[in-house]
Amino acid sequence: MKVAALSGGVGGARMLRGLAALEDVDLTAIVNIGDDEMIYGLAVSPDIDTVIYTLADREGPQGWGVADDSHAVMTSLERFPINTWFSMGDADLATNLFRTARLGQGWTLSQTTTAQAAVFGVKATVIPATDDPVRTEVRLADEEWISFQTYFVDRRHQGDVIDVRFLGAWASRPAPGVLEAIHQADLIVIGPSNPPLSIWPILAVPGVADAVGDAKRVVAVSPLFGGRPLKGPADVVMRGLGLPPGNAGVLAAYDGLLDELIIDTADVADIDDIDTEVQVRARDIRIADVDSATDLASALIDQ
Amino acid sequence: MKVAALSGGVGGARMLRGLAALEDVDLTAIVNIGDDEMIYGLAVSPDIDTVIYTLADREGPQGWGVADDSHAVMTSLERFPINTWFSMGDADLATNLFRTARLGQGWTLSQTTTAQAAVFGVKATVIPATDDPVRTEVRLADEEWISFQTYFVDRRHQGDVIDVRFLGAWASRPAPGVLEAIHQADLIVIGPSNPPLSIWPILAVPGVADAVGDAKRVVAVSPLFGGRPLKGPADVVMRGLGLPPGNAGVLAAYDGLLDELIIDTADVADIDDIDTEVQVRARDIRIADVDSATDLASALIDQ
Repeated sequence: MKVAALSGGVGGARMLRGLAALEDVDLTAIVNIGDDEMIYGLAVSPDIDTVIYTLADREGPQGWGVADDSHAVMTSLERFPINTWFSMGDADLATNLFRTARLGQGWTLSQTTTAQAAVFGVKATVIPATDDPVRTEVRLADEEWISFQTYFVDRRHQGDVIDVRFLGAWASRPAPGVLEAIHQADLIVIGPSNPPLSIWPILAVPGVADAVGDAKRVVAVSPLFGGRPLKGPADVVMRGLGLPPGNAGVLAAYDGLLDELIIDTADVADIDDIDTEVQVRARDIRIADVDSATDLASALIDQ
Repeated sequence: MKVAALSGGVGGARMLRGLAALEDVDLTAIVNIGDDEMIYGLAVSPDIDTVIYTLADREGPQGWGVADDSHAVMTSLERFPINTWFSMGDADLATNLFRTARLGQGWTLSQTTTAQAAVFGVKATVIPATDDPVRTEVRLADEEWISFQTYFVDRRHQGDVIDVRFLGAWASRPAPGVLEAIHQADLIVIGPSNPPLSIWPILAVPGVADAVGDAKRVVAVSPLFGGRPLKGPADVVMRGLGLPPGNAGVLAAYDGLLDELIIDTADVADIDDIDTEVQVRARDIRIADVDSATDLASALIDQ
């Protein structure tokens, strides 16, 4: 069974890990690159890295970075007069050095990602949504536009996001294999990622949203548990952008795309009075460990 | 006493350490940047780093890199499909990240160097020869031009260098403070570095050679011991460029600039039949440790 999954970072990566664990699933992960940025001169792609580390069961304790990583470089860097708000472990830094070096030699982000997945022994196909630069920016109340990483890491996602944009998206093209994977998929899964900040940048790449809309079956997994995400600002951002609260907001964020939305059992009551043609199913969607992620993946596959 | 010293990497750095140890010396180090290159997307400045690490007594066992450095990043990077011929320890990598990040924000190389020297507690003034890009390239017999680092590190300085050039030098300007330091110096010291590969790039920056030529007193320390350098290919390169063998080649490399050349006692016999107006003095010029470097520095100062 061919599955194409759209994914941001930690939550989406855990969903991917569940799907990848199913023997009869041929998985293509289409990953957000709106969070990519140059940090210390390095080309960081946080969601691609989180997806690959998680699929390799090498993710760090918070879901991002590499498990048991050392921090020798950051410890030295902190002695220098520079803002070290963006921390990376040593193994994670090696990933970024590899990507930066190869991009500088003319490789595409798809190519570095394929090589990186091979290094980590990942069997699923992992593709960035686009090889072109797309950069998510947010606008906070009474402020200028700031980059995603400035908002998310430096500001610790404090402040009211009132607008979001994806610089470069209009001129970007889907990376090789993205549209093919969507067209050929028996099932499209939209992972439990932040809809505006992690999935919209993927859908903003021309052609991707149309392809998803035409797909046979599209299932989204809600990022909400009792109306709030386990981590990150999904609820705050959706509210700031004028979307309805709770899973009604998730449905609105994916308006016209979904056949099905999987919500947590904690949110059953909230969904009752929503008028939607999308089939909404409730179950336990906590997927921090592999087994629960695999259970959820099975449920998605089986309908 | 104001001393301005021209320096390449290891040998020159050790000479600087001796000069810096003298209480009555106000030292400005003018450092080769022809070896600078982008490696893994990072702006490496090997000679600047070697000078600062050595002046801080933090240099690695081979004279370059940081003492007792760990290698977590390189160990991870070696798993990736990329040529890891250029190795850097983790603390050394932090230096390169700092420089790369700040250069990307518009700092000059002088500014990153000043900040870096402060982090390492270096009291001497350390200035790159220029803030503009100057890149040393060498041509081997029957080959195209290759970068200094490709020749020196990747090829382990094998092969016959038949030509050398300094890309960008014609359009470069001395970094702020370079000409002032030379003009104001009571003594100019040319360190025991590779004359064509480490000192010529400094002299190739327009204005520097003229300023050195006009200086009150210019003393070079030979990089040769029994006609050969302790490390590196100085003798091979000088021969390949058509310079005479031994210290006659050093004199020729610095033609018109020197008042004095300090050679090793092992080379006294070879210098006898050279017709030169430069005063040649022989003494022990092995300066791997601080004390011997300080002794030599005292000898230079005292005339």
